[in-house]
Amino acid sequence: MINIHIIGAGSIGLLFAHRLSKCGHSIQIITRSEKQSEELNRHGVVNQSAQKITAGPLEHTQFHQADAVLIAVKQYHLEAIMPAISDIPASIPLIFLQNGMSHLEHLSSLTHEHIFVSTVEHGAKKLNAYSVQHNGVGWWRLAAYRGEDEKLQSILACHHKDFPIEYESDYLKLLRVKLIKNLMINPLTAIFQVKNGVLADNPYFNKMMISLYEELSAVFPEEIGYCSFQDILDLCRRTAENESSMLSDIKAGRKTEVESLTGYAIKIAEEKNVMPVLLIFLEKSILAIQIERGSD
Amino acid sequence: MINIHIIGAGSIGLLFAHRLSKCGHSIQIITRSEKQSEELNRHGVVNQSAQKITAGPLEHTQFHQADAVLIAVKQYHLEAIMPAISDIPASIPLIFLQNGMSHLEHLSSLTHEHIFVSTVEHGAKKLNAYSVQHNGVGWWRLAAYRGEDEKLQSILACHHKDFPIEYESDYLKLLRVKLIKNLMINPLTAIFQVKNGVLADNPYFNKMMISLYEELSAVFPEEIGYCSFQDILDLCRRTAENESSMLSDIKAGRKTEVESLTGYAIKIAEEKNVMPVLLIFLEKSILAIQIERGSD
Repeated sequence: MINIHIIGAGSIGLLFAHRLSKCGHSIQIITRSEKQSEELNRHGVVNQSAQKITAGPLEHTQFHQADAVLIAVKQYHLEAIMPAISDIPASIPLIFLQNGMSHLEHLSSLTHEHIFVSTVEHGAKKLNAYSVQHNGVGWWRLAAYRGEDEKLQSILACHHKDFPIEYESDYLKLLRVKLIKNLMINPLTAIFQVKNGVLADNPYFNKMMISLYEELSAVFPEEIGYCSFQDILDLCRRTAENESSMLSDIKAGRKTEVESLTGYAIKIAEEKNVMPVLLIFLEKSILAIQIERGSD
Repeated sequence: MINIHIIGAGSIGLLFAHRLSKCGHSIQIITRSEKQSEELNRHGVVNQSAQKITAGPLEHTQFHQADAVLIAVKQYHLEAIMPAISDIPASIPLIFLQNGMSHLEHLSSLTHEHIFVSTVEHGAKKLNAYSVQHNGVGWWRLAAYRGEDEKLQSILACHHKDFPIEYESDYLKLLRVKLIKNLMINPLTAIFQVKNGVLADNPYFNKMMISLYEELSAVFPEEIGYCSFQDILDLCRRTAENESSMLSDIKAGRKTEVESLTGYAIKIAEEKNVMPVLLIFLEKSILAIQIERGSD
């Protein structure tokens, strides 16, 4: 058993609290507000199998007893908590769970000895402050941004068929392959308000995805080899009934993570003199929808 | 007074029947079905000021007494009635009111001496088989595809502040400038389910339109000079509360005219070695939505 602090009580924070506590780890969830912590402490995380989950707001949290800190806030909330993350003792391993790539620029300024990034393919939907619904099993893939992977031993041991974990050696490839998948699925499902499976089944969405895939192939010629068009279709079909996180965000009137997904890809495209017409169009589409829905 | 036959009892057919009858012309509306004609003959066109409108189904119509025939069916219904149009005596002027450009290929095979094409900027919504609501006043612009413009004299005299008419000399320019406007407004409003004004007001839609305008500028370098980006924004603002015909079609679960709008532009782009990435994406988007809505 190790002590794991999880910053962020969104769907992924709650799902990981629940799953890691099932492995016997002691979990402390760190919330933004006192009220969220109180609710979590009163109810626990619904469906939890162990009673080791506690919660507290960020401002009162001491991290020195943590064996690892998972950072599970949305990409666009990361900046606000970077000062608090900087204050975590430098020997404690940090594990980031953000989508996209834009958190990388924050990581370089941290002095921590062990920093890991990871990608999450679980489908999870937060039902209220303390309940999360696990909609789809997917891989949690981790890679070292800095430091030694032995620090992850206890966490990697939590591997289970409903919570499969994999360790990867190349963090940039890991994040970019996930980025490609997200870029292929999230904006389209959010713009057209369709579940993942529709992208694979509707012949015109299929053709649109081929065009987008061609654009991404020019931007990420190496990584695209680890993520064939067929892989993307398979992923859509395997998660046919899922709503992408971006579609959920749009439906709930929340801000989406579009800029942290597209921003990095557009920057890389520019470096390579590729004109990412569709990526720019998709980014603007989502930002336009956010304004219309008041979630800007 | 002249005898005008109008083929098609959709929103534009009914609007033109109403307006042209107000000018004193005798109108015969030609419908697809016997039932539509009966309803029109029973009720007249609602709000009509004259009683000269009669209706009959296409199969029973004799055109030899017509002074002009307006063809007001949707672009994609045109092919089905081309045999009937071919049978209209060759001396009777034909006036086409279709959006897009794909009707041009049908026109070349006709033997008629006087063929006119035209663009319609009125906002009109059909309420039932015999009622039409006039939502926005706009220009009806005509140009000769073949023959002499004197044949239009009586019709051009119907010009009124609520029904402004203009004669243009270059039919290809006329249609292409309208095509550019339609391509800029219709697919985006239909995909994002927004009224015209939103395209001008929302800064991200605005940026998306700039990208699309750049693409269209490469496809139609001459015509774009007659249709500045500011003109498009003005048009969106002038018709801010209007729903584009494509949005109305999507909402009503009807097939849209997307292919007759984009198909021509994509063909011209290919001839000029321009890759119309956004046009293709917009076309596929609308076709995908049509499948999801069952209006394919």
